[in-house]
Amino acid sequence: MTVAFSDIQAARARIAGQVDRTPVRHSRRLSELTGAEVWVKYDNLHFTGSFKERGALNRLLLLSESERRRGVVAASAGNHAQALAYHGGRLGVPVTIVMPEGTPFTKVDGTRRHGANVVIHGLDFSGSTEEAKRLEQEKGFIFVSAFDDAGIVAGQGVCAVEFLEDAPDLDSLIIPIGGGGLIAGCAIAAKAIKPDIRVFGVEAAMYPSFTAKRRGEPPRCGGATIAEGIAIKAVGDIPFALADPLIEDVMVCDEEDFEKAVAFYATYEKTVAEGAGAGGLAALLRHPERFAGHRVGLVLCGGNIDARMLAVVLNREMVRERRLIVYRILGDDRPGMLSAMAAVIGGVGGNIIDVVHNRLALDVPAKGAEFDIMVETRDSAHADEIGQALKDKGYALRMG
Amino acid sequence: MTVAFSDIQAARARIAGQVDRTPVRHSRRLSELTGAEVWVKYDNLHFTGSFKERGALNRLLLLSESERRRGVVAASAGNHAQALAYHGGRLGVPVTIVMPEGTPFTKVDGTRRHGANVVIHGLDFSGSTEEAKRLEQEKGFIFVSAFDDAGIVAGQGVCAVEFLEDAPDLDSLIIPIGGGGLIAGCAIAAKAIKPDIRVFGVEAAMYPSFTAKRRGEPPRCGGATIAEGIAIKAVGDIPFALADPLIEDVMVCDEEDFEKAVAFYATYEKTVAEGAGAGGLAALLRHPERFAGHRVGLVLCGGNIDARMLAVVLNREMVRERRLIVYRILGDDRPGMLSAMAAVIGGVGGNIIDVVHNRLALDVPAKGAEFDIMVETRDSAHADEIGQALKDKGYALRMG
Repeated sequence: MTVAFSDIQAARARIAGQVDRTPVRHSRRLSELTGAEVWVKYDNLHFTGSFKERGALNRLLLLSESERRRGVVAASAGNHAQALAYHGGRLGVPVTIVMPEGTPFTKVDGTRRHGANVVIHGLDFSGSTEEAKRLEQEKGFIFVSAFDDAGIVAGQGVCAVEFLEDAPDLDSLIIPIGGGGLIAGCAIAAKAIKPDIRVFGVEAAMYPSFTAKRRGEPPRCGGATIAEGIAIKAVGDIPFALADPLIEDVMVCDEEDFEKAVAFYATYEKTVAEGAGAGGLAALLRHPERFAGHRVGLVLCGGNIDARMLAVVLNREMVRERRLIVYRILGDDRPGMLSAMAAVIGGVGGNIIDVVHNRLALDVPAKGAEFDIMVETRDSAHADEIGQALKDKGYALRMG
Repeated sequence: MTVAFSDIQAARARIAGQVDRTPVRHSRRLSELTGAEVWVKYDNLHFTGSFKERGALNRLLLLSESERRRGVVAASAGNHAQALAYHGGRLGVPVTIVMPEGTPFTKVDGTRRHGANVVIHGLDFSGSTEEAKRLEQEKGFIFVSAFDDAGIVAGQGVCAVEFLEDAPDLDSLIIPIGGGGLIAGCAIAAKAIKPDIRVFGVEAAMYPSFTAKRRGEPPRCGGATIAEGIAIKAVGDIPFALADPLIEDVMVCDEEDFEKAVAFYATYEKTVAEGAGAGGLAALLRHPERFAGHRVGLVLCGGNIDARMLAVVLNREMVRERRLIVYRILGDDRPGMLSAMAAVIGGVGGNIIDVVHNRLALDVPAKGAEFDIMVETRDSAHADEIGQALKDKGYALRMG
């Protein structure tokens, strides 16, 4: 089972006109921030919000007439489900998606609205996959893996062809790795077009299955990562075999890297990235020295982040930058205390967001109280200034 | 003082190659949601994050050689400041910006980084404007209004020329109104290109100064709107005179409309809009019946929203959709009570985010307690289901 550049070119012709050509833009901000020349391909602007459409559509178009009639089945709570459901619906191919219990209703509903039959089964992705394979046997559906499939890989490779047409001077690509379909296809295409191009992968530290396989170690995966789109316990055999010889290195990023990248995309590029989608930027922000002066292409491969999670990430980035900070102050529990402290904070331009009184802390006198005052500051230096102003007025600062 | 289409064409030639051509995209999601065929022009993707660049650059390029040497002054804490500072810096024109006290440090710093001299003066926009006019007299600077200026209006009109080139079938444009520079320029250009096109304005309900002037009433403006980019107490005389005869109507939108539009842009279009920038969508969501079946162009004119404010808006939209909900329950203050309630909520798939106990509510027995349990739900129907499950178990639901 192999995938050649000609398969990717064939995929491109096959899906032409049925999938959006996503925009590529040079980013002056991200270039300034990282020291590289950065281009971004906005695959988060696909109709279903992720890069998965090219692969899913290519796979569907490779079905024989009788396979089309039988229909397809897949296990996914995420982007593959939406892409397969949408294009299956368009083409009149029956699509069954198995999702794990507890899948957010918006995702179930979004998939159903594209006309797919959604089956809720299994406690996690493995459980859903088992059920999908059972349905393959029982109903005669064609099982469509999200990544471990030559037709999927060939479709995903079209992303790199488009990217290098729009930004032909790129010398490096950074691509997130879940099951490996995207990086395998993109590495094959990019190396065929520009043999000297460097292709890097990105994995989440909680799910470094590609890295483990390269080292011949068993993967140790688990945990609730914000990059759930690439939280795959075992990289696909087909994409691994194809990508491994072609790629430079895989960079493993922590949660903080992904969060920061999501926040930076929103702040500087005015675009909404999901955790996995921001993986390329996460790796670039973590290892700028490896890309300084290079012409780097980031595939922003998905934007399907929960509104609440995006809000949490934006707030956490403010905490990280000390633009949201808690001052813990030991004070007397007497009238006027809070007013006096609030006056000090307001006087130097801090904006109080929340106040919590703790009167039960045993290391505080019974007649005292501990105040946790959450303040919005302009930046870290301003946070210091407010802390100093409190100390100057004699308040006992325990934190902040 | 007038502005003709030929002035806009001249402005276009003058600024060519020095301002990004922002993308235009058809939105299937927003079309489905509103019943109109919706195109969006992403002026939030300008380098300084808003549409202000075309007008500011055109005005700077209209300066005489001696005026260039004297330099310009403007009052602005926002998008005009950034645009003028950036292009002034590029062109070597000295730029002084007067900002009101309390302007967020990021905006002061952002403006300074473009090379502008920033003066902090005045309690609000009026106070800063007075100081800017004083500096005009004292230092011989050229005062550059953000909107009440023919060169600014001509530059802003280029937006509509680009929009109609990329989406020539549009029959309606919806454009936010602050000082009126954008709608005046766009109305002149659009009506020259397509005399039958309908041009609509949008104002925030707290600052309906264009609407008041149309009615011959004094403007009654004030309040902290999320659309601070269009919170102008008096529309400019020049743009009003130009736009008034050309536009169909001005739609006045409430805070909720703007918040919803910002949240929808993030959720469906994966793009970050500031309140004012989302004004076109706010009006379309509020009055879909006026645009059903029409081909509508929205100018998403700015993306400079504070990260914390974006997070707040996303969370508030979840509250509005009952995907975040507080159940207030009257219970006994005894061990196991919370655990039992939490089991009911978790059993039907609700995710508890926060719990507050209120033991001082006087309409609760001294041995009772009131619980405020904040829960993340899948949607409004799920919120009902959780509420019913609590009632079925005999809990006294006071809210939720």
